[in-house]
Amino acid sequence: MTIAARPLDPDAIIGILGGGQLGRMLALSAASLGLKCHVLCPEPLSCAFDVVRRVTEADYVDKSALDRFADDVDVVTYEFENVPAETATFLAARKPVLPDPQVLATTQDRLVEKSWITSLGIATAPFAPVGSLKELAPALAAIGRPAVLKTRRFGYDGKGQATIRTGDDAEAAWQEIGAQPAILEAFIPFEREISVVVARSIDGETLCFDVAENEHRDHILKVSRVPAAVPAALADEARGIATRIAEAFDYVGVLAVEMFVVADGAAPAVMVNEIAPRVHNSGHWTLDGCSVSQFEQHIRAVAGWPLATPVRRGRAEMVNLIGAEVEAVDKWLTVPGASVHLYGKPAVRDGRKMGHVTQVFEE
Amino acid sequence: MTIAARPLDPDAIIGILGGGQLGRMLALSAASLGLKCHVLCPEPLSCAFDVVRRVTEADYVDKSALDRFADDVDVVTYEFENVPAETATFLAARKPVLPDPQVLATTQDRLVEKSWITSLGIATAPFAPVGSLKELAPALAAIGRPAVLKTRRFGYDGKGQATIRTGDDAEAAWQEIGAQPAILEAFIPFEREISVVVARSIDGETLCFDVAENEHRDHILKVSRVPAAVPAALADEARGIATRIAEAFDYVGVLAVEMFVVADGAAPAVMVNEIAPRVHNSGHWTLDGCSVSQFEQHIRAVAGWPLATPVRRGRAEMVNLIGAEVEAVDKWLTVPGASVHLYGKPAVRDGRKMGHVTQVFEE
Repeated sequence: MTIAARPLDPDAIIGILGGGQLGRMLALSAASLGLKCHVLCPEPLSCAFDVVRRVTEADYVDKSALDRFADDVDVVTYEFENVPAETATFLAARKPVLPDPQVLATTQDRLVEKSWITSLGIATAPFAPVGSLKELAPALAAIGRPAVLKTRRFGYDGKGQATIRTGDDAEAAWQEIGAQPAILEAFIPFEREISVVVARSIDGETLCFDVAENEHRDHILKVSRVPAAVPAALADEARGIATRIAEAFDYVGVLAVEMFVVADGAAPAVMVNEIAPRVHNSGHWTLDGCSVSQFEQHIRAVAGWPLATPVRRGRAEMVNLIGAEVEAVDKWLTVPGASVHLYGKPAVRDGRKMGHVTQVFEE
Repeated sequence: MTIAARPLDPDAIIGILGGGQLGRMLALSAASLGLKCHVLCPEPLSCAFDVVRRVTEADYVDKSALDRFADDVDVVTYEFENVPAETATFLAARKPVLPDPQVLATTQDRLVEKSWITSLGIATAPFAPVGSLKELAPALAAIGRPAVLKTRRFGYDGKGQATIRTGDDAEAAWQEIGAQPAILEAFIPFEREISVVVARSIDGETLCFDVAENEHRDHILKVSRVPAAVPAALADEARGIATRIAEAFDYVGVLAVEMFVVADGAAPAVMVNEIAPRVHNSGHWTLDGCSVSQFEQHIRAVAGWPLATPVRRGRAEMVNLIGAEVEAVDKWLTVPGASVHLYGKPAVRDGRKMGHVTQVFEE
């Protein structure tokens, strides 16, 4: 059962599943609109806990905690795509959950996601299911090398992935990803990686932010530049794809679509790599570089409020502060026009996103 | 005793006295920098309580609550100038209080404040002390009519003021302001009202935001426009005055100086009307119209961090949503480029600041 959502009053309470930096920035944006948030997360030191008065420190499958959480809030949303299906179902029987939990079912599984994207007539890298080690050889024969073997579930920031090049031992890759249900994808020699953050309202209005161009380091996003250095027609195509995906999901909230730009013969073309049913790191630039942020847009959508028309303020460059890089934040604090965002995380860890910096330049 | 302040670590806790919208926006800006806040306010429904995890609901002179508050925080600041002197003194013996409590002693009393400004060689409206009814007639004779009789303490948004024009009964004005120690000020036929928000760091660096031009309605700020439509030399003079005031106070944090522009014969000149030792409504435009907001600048200063160099993003116009005006917020939600800020206050009341909207236009 899904409960229909209605526009929230300004004193309503939005429940957020997940207490990381995305939940934190969602809560801060909700506060700018006068809305309250209640954050549920199992981690006692969740950085989103510090910016709200209402917190529930509980496991995602703790039914009695979920019950109290549902009682307290007017709508539920989430900051990460790996919300357990039973959590989403349990909450959706009590309060509106936006985006709809069926989106999670699709995007939590790379094979289901890619098949679904393909069914919309949208290009992805060629892929094949690998349910067991013995399916790997025929999949490799079909896809060719180099190829990337990825776990179907729970991958992020390059975790659960192994590249199989000519001469590589395929079985080693299978063991490396934990010998679990996987998908084999053709390795795409892309020209660049781009992403589109799109928002869709309860009324079905969609609005895209400008296309970001993303640079990864060690499989973690390092820099996003907006606008992406792509022809206008390709940017339109990318926005069109994100919009079609949001519409096909009957999505409410903000969604990000990561894409590869490939030099397909003469004209460059776009291929979808991944869908993130949530606000996305490549949209952080909107906090400073746009009249409305992706976080506010998501809150407006799940609150049943109208979306804002994004007006970009210039050319934006967002740099993630990862792990110990945050210790060099002092140098950023005095760069004129640089906006520093720190997430208040209790401990520096390798690969952990500690903050980001956005610079907006005149075009 | 004043305890010296040191630069805060990113996981430090800033104590904020006062739980209104200014405290709320300070806490939100602190969160963007990864800093935590603890808000102390006697009002149970304080809107700043909703955006922090640590709250103390207690009277400002509740010593045991202040003690616990001081224990929990690394530095104390305030969102309003009427913090009781004994509160500031009590806290300053335990933790750094910034801006220094001596600033409060000066700015809480209009007579002391105006005398102090005059002692710096900065122009104000002519004024005279009125300690009792019998001092009113000689003060009126000295200042002339029209004049404005103001209580020395606890005035804001036009409260505690009465204008005495030709033919008006002076004693009625004295009764109107509550027959209490007052100051009589010459009525200034100003051309426009402007304000300068200045930040000063622990190291003594000062940085001004651009001059705002302010329009009041029923003694409450209604619109601020930036930059003010004044000659560059006058804007420089205004910023210079604000800087001198901040330096004379050895101020740490953000300070606002309200001024009148008067057509003094040929050249327009500036006269200081009032000092607000805190972030100020006429600086709200900086949240959207500038690379750094007045709130972040204040937090950086009291945290002992370097100030940011403000880069204005365009011509800004900030409109307050006062009382029932907030009910028309829907129309603002869809204006392209308009940034809506609601304060999450529990009840609409006449004259209550419920939110504001900023629009930034290309110059």
